[in-house]
Amino acid sequence: MCRWLAYYGDPIPIEALVFRRQHSLIDQSLHARQGATPTNGDGFGIGWYDEHGDTPGVYRSVHPAWSDRNLRELAAHIRSPLFFAHIRASTGTAVQETNSHPFRHGRWLFMHNGLVREFALIRRDLLLAVDPALLPEIEGSTDSEVLFHLALTFGLEDDPVTALERMAGFVEDVAAEHGIEDPLQMSVAVTDGERIVAARYSSEGRSRSLFFSTDARVLKAQYPEMPELQALSDDARAVVSEPLGDLVGAWNEVPEASVGIVHGGEDELRPFTPRRGAVRAAGGAPSAAG
Amino acid sequence: MCRWLAYYGDPIPIEALVFRRQHSLIDQSLHARQGATPTNGDGFGIGWYDEHGDTPGVYRSVHPAWSDRNLRELAAHIRSPLFFAHIRASTGTAVQETNSHPFRHGRWLFMHNGLVREFALIRRDLLLAVDPALLPEIEGSTDSEVLFHLALTFGLEDDPVTALERMAGFVEDVAAEHGIEDPLQMSVAVTDGERIVAARYSSEGRSRSLFFSTDARVLKAQYPEMPELQALSDDARAVVSEPLGDLVGAWNEVPEASVGIVHGGEDELRPFTPRRGAVRAAGGAPSAAG
Amino acid sequence: MCRWLAYYGDPIPIEALVFRRQHSLIDQSLHARQGATPTNGDGFGIGWYDEHGDTPGVYRSVHPAWSDRNLRELAAHIRSPLFFAHIRASTGTAVQETNSHPFRHGRWLFMHNGLVREFALIRRDLLLAVDPALLPEIEGSTDSEVLFHLALTFGLEDDPVTALERMAGFVEDVAAEHGIEDPLQMSVAVTDGERIVAARYSSEGRSRSLFFSTDARVLKAQYPEMPELQALSDDARAVVSEPLGDLVGAWNEVPEASVGIVHGGEDELRPFTPRRGAVRAAGGAPSAAG
Amino acid sequence: MCRWLAYYGDPIPIEALVFRRQHSLIDQSLHARQGATPTNGDGFGIGWYDEHGDTPGVYRSVHPAWSDRNLRELAAHIRSPLFFAHIRASTGTAVQETNSHPFRHGRWLFMHNGLVREFALIRRDLLLAVDPALLPEIEGSTDSEVLFHLALTFGLEDDPVTALERMAGFVEDVAAEHGIEDPLQMSVAVTDGERIVAARYSSEGRSRSLFFSTDARVLKAQYPEMPELQALSDDARAVVSEPLGDLVGAWNEVPEASVGIVHGGEDELRPFTPRRGAVRAAGGAPSAAG
Repeated sequence: MCRWLAYYGDPIPIEALVFRRQHSLIDQSLHARQGATPTNGDGFGIGWYDEHGDTPGVYRSVHPAWSDRNLRELAAHIRSPLFFAHIRASTGTAVQETNSHPFRHGRWLFMHNGLVREFALIRRDLLLAVDPALLPEIEGSTDSEVLFHLALTFGLEDDPVTALERMAGFVEDVAAEHGIEDPLQMSVAVTDGERIVAARYSSEGRSRSLFFSTDARVLKAQYPEMPELQALSDDARAVVSEPLGDLVGAWNEVPEASVGIVHGGEDELRPFTPRRGAVRAAGGAPSAAG
Repeated sequence: MCRWLAYYGDPIPIEALVFRRQHSLIDQSLHARQGATPTNGDGFGIGWYDEHGDTPGVYRSVHPAWSDRNLRELAAHIRSPLFFAHIRASTGTAVQETNSHPFRHGRWLFMHNGLVREFALIRRDLLLAVDPALLPEIEGSTDSEVLFHLALTFGLEDDPVTALERMAGFVEDVAAEHGIEDPLQMSVAVTDGERIVAARYSSEGRSRSLFFSTDARVLKAQYPEMPELQALSDDARAVVSEPLGDLVGAWNEVPEASVGIVHGGEDELRPFTPRRGAVRAAGGAPSAAG
Repeated sequence: MCRWLAYYGDPIPIEALVFRRQHSLIDQSLHARQGATPTNGDGFGIGWYDEHGDTPGVYRSVHPAWSDRNLRELAAHIRSPLFFAHIRASTGTAVQETNSHPFRHGRWLFMHNGLVREFALIRRDLLLAVDPALLPEIEGSTDSEVLFHLALTFGLEDDPVTALERMAGFVEDVAAEHGIEDPLQMSVAVTDGERIVAARYSSEGRSRSLFFSTDARVLKAQYPEMPELQALSDDARAVVSEPLGDLVGAWNEVPEASVGIVHGGEDELRPFTPRRGAVRAAGGAPSAAG
Repeated sequence: MCRWLAYYGDPIPIEALVFRRQHSLIDQSLHARQGATPTNGDGFGIGWYDEHGDTPGVYRSVHPAWSDRNLRELAAHIRSPLFFAHIRASTGTAVQETNSHPFRHGRWLFMHNGLVREFALIRRDLLLAVDPALLPEIEGSTDSEVLFHLALTFGLEDDPVTALERMAGFVEDVAAEHGIEDPLQMSVAVTDGERIVAARYSSEGRSRSLFFSTDARVLKAQYPEMPELQALSDDARAVVSEPLGDLVGAWNEVPEASVGIVHGGEDELRPFTPRRGAVRAAGGAPSAAG
């Protein structure tokens, strides 16, 4: 199990959410409340957009986030209008930078909390379905990185919601062929630096927790005495595995099987429906190989 | 806070105590029960004696013990009649190999759970009291490493119990000069490969937990049906921060302010009494420097 | 480019070859003479057999071998009758433990110096040919780990020389389909703890260097005044990327396209001939997938 | 031996000097030309000023700079008007982040190439001379970190040139008391974010190399066809252990025993004269302690 957060809004220092909250991501690395395991100490990563270069910056580490001094430095010195942060709890996969989230492809970032059940059994079929041109990018051994490259294969850069739904449906299709029940458990976020797409879904309908912060305009009206909130831009929004504090009214749980899109204060929330049958029926790579 | 264990007896693989117990040291790295913090993920170390060379082997890492694959390999392949294992929870000091226990000097190993209160205030005075010939050996920034070198300065290699008592008394003397109350909290173990000396002490009389295993002959008689116990040699003994399991009668808490000596099945338990005034009165380095 | 060594004979401490020679592997990590790059600082690994457990021990690190203190400890304390040691020079692939050699499968170890040209282009075809039951073991991103699992797929555990020849031929077959010239450059060693099989081969006929030490009985007769040599067992043999010293008559270059088998003082040297067409013709996985 | 560079001028990405030059610092990490050792692979660090917070950012790593992917990310995404970068070649001291340069105190950064001869012998005397209030900041085991804290003790924040001269003189005084010849070899840089002070000095008069870039206005006039140079601000200046390229007229060796001050295009170069006797005569800490 892992924990993550995503921020959209006017530029803020990364430390504002990663360190400086009552139940910040650093606190969650030692004492997660809503996850399967309280400790998330198997590496971490941050990804951020800024005015430099064509791709977001990524810093990934094998150390626990709570003791990494470089993270503290970077989180204080990097300001960004859109960033991801992720702390990892491995379930056996190697702790190495290439297994830390977020993963990057061009301008896109991807991070994930969850798992593909019996991944070892279907890893080959999933890898086979990845666009051969994308396969060389896969450097680690996590299911998450494969899910990202499946979504890229299925059109993430053009239509992220549909691509995620096709990815989820495809995993369920392949798992069904292997007799694996309830294969997918995920709370996932992707971004191109313009908008954040975050989905909560699991095959068994009991997904890992996911929360969106309340509209910043509402929070600012509700808590006029809190300078920290007043400093937020009207379109500021955080998406998190678990709330960063206990402020009443600040956090809204994403409904089961839903996907949210954060963009310029005009958020959307829709059902998330895996597209079963689509790839297999179309003669995707794994079928051809079977 | 940290957790540690020490083993004496016929050679066993290190994994027998570090991995293969209900509440092994690896389990304690994630879920310590009796300590100030449940997570001990800021590096670890093992030290062991074998028939090779004049000094014990030491393997120290900055990674959490639970995810270090090399530890798993070494613990399975190294057999030893006397070994130390330590998992660290830093209170701010850097996570680096030179801050991981055990520390080594010649044939001696030292490990520690506890702290010197206000260490930053008295670090200079403590360093000044270290034998100048030993000072270059100090490579890290922990209080523990300084305590070890003080004990060496005060005769650890000749009379370890007295040297530890002089060390404790000296720390209390220096702290008193700085107006620091209850400066020392420690459960500490030293060995030269022949015997283990383990002390439990704190200035305020509420020391960190410490347990000795019951005499192996007694355990073997009590549990004839347990092959794991029957395989132990008669003089086998473990000293641990917290019990490795729930077996009734297997673990005995060391009384407050006591020191135990494990050697060849003839263990001793004595009061541990810091020797106050001794070094200062004798014109030890810090006084002379004042 | 990388450097490696393998030892067979009576048990010796690993440090005897890794540290204590004029041009030891540690010296080669900073100053390789015969390789494409003088620096081999992108991680290292050792693998060794002993009387404990069913599988060899493996210690792998991301640090340069020259500064890893744990390696120094282990090399002094581990004695083994058969061990591998490898220092890595990455050509862009991530520096992570799962990319360090040797790789292990059951009782087998594998290490490699060389490369598959245009590996990114044919990685998918090579992965597809790996036995699906073995695929989940692949944790890193090197060509070497894939070569090992191809050889396992092609029968390494039954007939290692033939399996290596089929592996080499298969890589050349797949490369030819993609129009890649001279795809394979390798000096490779495998062992099951009983014998060492080491091959030198490259598609273009200009292979990386490889040397076998001279028969220990000959060396002992030739240099009666050298206690280090006299201490070797009669069947002692080292296989190395480059000689560990300048002793006249001690090292013999393996001829181009050859494979040697070290076992009990009765060594063999044979031509190494990649088996082209075998897998493809038999309808191996990649063809089926095409 | 180590290599370092310092930049002053309009903000540029750190990668411009660390990666994108013919003989960039990354190239020097593998192939230093003018140093005692060609390989500088024992960790590295960068320090930079920006508009965030009161102190410069610092990123330090134990990995070789050439293979650290995070360095590549940060160097591309961090722009700064004044930064330090340092690659380390240890001579035995532990490779740990607290031994990587630059070191920081408040707004000040310090980095160093060189050594104190027989440091182990005089480390105690040097530590004793450090302001007791500063001593707790020392976290590593290098001579460099002690030199920095001596300079701070001797007034670095008020008058950096004099403080460096007092530090150098003090080291030579203490070394003389121990009969150590030619104790100091250094090329050192300090900054408060406003100006860079860089000195080249050694007791024996054969100091490690140090170069200042030519006045940017001169270079721009001389090479009107080079857009990279034309993009520099008029006050841009680099100070380096060895030139970053072969451009004729671009680099000027600092004379033996000199100190340069870079600030706003108005650079100064002065003799560097260690102040012998000053501290000892004034009853500095070590004398008082003796």
